[in-house]
Amino acid sequence: MKRTAIVGLGIIGASLARALKARGLSVDGYDQQPETLDFALRNGYIDGVAEYMRSYDNVFLAIPPKAAISVLQNATFKDGAFVADICGVKGVLEKAVYAAPRNYRYVGLHPMAGKETSGIQSSSEKLFCGANLVITVAKNTDADALNEAREFARLLGFGKIVECTAEEHDAKIALTSQLAHIVSNAYVKSEQVAHCDGFTGGSFQDMTRIAGVDEQMWTELYMLNRPHILAELEGLIDHLTVYKKAIAEGDEEGLRRALAEGKAIRKKIKRRND
Amino acid sequence: MKRTAIVGLGIIGASLARALKARGLSVDGYDQQPETLDFALRNGYIDGVAEYMRSYDNVFLAIPPKAAISVLQNATFKDGAFVADICGVKGVLEKAVYAAPRNYRYVGLHPMAGKETSGIQSSSEKLFCGANLVITVAKNTDADALNEAREFARLLGFGKIVECTAEEHDAKIALTSQLAHIVSNAYVKSEQVAHCDGFTGGSFQDMTRIAGVDEQMWTELYMLNRPHILAELEGLIDHLTVYKKAIAEGDEEGLRRALAEGKAIRKKIKRRND
Repeated sequence: MKRTAIVGLGIIGASLARALKARGLSVDGYDQQPETLDFALRNGYIDGVAEYMRSYDNVFLAIPPKAAISVLQNATFKDGAFVADICGVKGVLEKAVYAAPRNYRYVGLHPMAGKETSGIQSSSEKLFCGANLVITVAKNTDADALNEAREFARLLGFGKIVECTAEEHDAKIALTSQLAHIVSNAYVKSEQVAHCDGFTGGSFQDMTRIAGVDEQMWTELYMLNRPHILAELEGLIDHLTVYKKAIAEGDEEGLRRALAEGKAIRKKIKRRND
Repeated sequence: MKRTAIVGLGIIGASLARALKARGLSVDGYDQQPETLDFALRNGYIDGVAEYMRSYDNVFLAIPPKAAISVLQNATFKDGAFVADICGVKGVLEKAVYAAPRNYRYVGLHPMAGKETSGIQSSSEKLFCGANLVITVAKNTDADALNEAREFARLLGFGKIVECTAEEHDAKIALTSQLAHIVSNAYVKSEQVAHCDGFTGGSFQDMTRIAGVDEQMWTELYMLNRPHILAELEGLIDHLTVYKKAIAEGDEEGLRRALAEGKAIRKKIKRRND
């Protein structure tokens, strides 16, 4: 039986371990926090502790990018092992992997799944069910490894599965994930926010749900994707400034036009996703 | 039996009609669109057409602010009628009502409920169940009318019911509702948005859910609450600029601090709402 290791048992790694075990795989895990590792063992999320990477046929790295790069460059993997990172940025990962020869077969994975909470206690066997998955592929990607990634994706019940380059991934998730976390984090900084109990509806809940980001992890993600997140953030500020100007100047026509433009785009997104 | 009229049968007015009728009240309705009125009659959302305001003991105005002001200033109401507007801004409404003597008793209502879609076909008998309701009160507010508003609120199954001045309402909903709709509308304007199928998760859905605003109604709402929405919009742009600067300059410490600040505020909101 093939042996699978998951490094990092936060919400993503632990959810992956639980989902794979529920589908009959033998899964070992590792986390640098002894209490997390202990929690995973006691709750049966993993079968054992993954000590040596070279013992495993499949390795998933569910740790922050820099830590994942360090493992990819320094650990001893089994010859031909399937090794995937589950980081939120891909360009730097791929660059590090392909900078030197390696005996393992690398694929990048990014499940578009998560919660506003983190850690092993937020993990769920069903976190990936129906969620989008991005698989990053380069010219160096091993065809069989890519097929194995697709099989894992199907096994885990992902919804839409997209394959693209690391560059494309990094440009798009800057908008779909990274910018959203900054906006939410900024949104709660209004002075009004402390006095808004009873004045909130679904719009406010949606805007502020993911404000409580882990500042360590997200700082790392943003710094490793600077050109893309910067383009999105600057773009959003520019767009917001159009509404601001129109309101400040009492320019009803300009404001109406700005709102109608957004509405038209929203309709297209909706139609595409239907 | 007291007679109730609802003017405007969009999502809010029609939901109100259906909820009140489900609780045994007799409700007439009016909408300037003949097909909407017809739809309401055919589906039994209203008992009849509300033609003359002076026939009703209770009148709810679920129409845009300027139209509501026009009705409040020009219609002939029954002596002592309970008349409430359900607009998203309150200062201008109150000012118009109290500018001259009147024979009706006015209260402002703002249910913090809605959907990303509008119109009578989006209405629901349960739209207000558990939702927050803001009742605006001035020194001129009739004590019995306020009690009647509270009774309606309880009858409709609202969750938290807050009473405050029109000024306080306008300042707070600028953040909790108005700003959210601009942000969502601006968010979809990224050039990446057209190519993001499969790259989205819950964060993107949340950010873009309410992007498709009705530009007529929202332009009116923004223009009638300019100082407050401008303060919130400028504040958000200023806050976003802090992250932008930190990312542009590679200032990890500054970015980490900005994210940690938002996280700390988010925790407090959460605790307060628990």
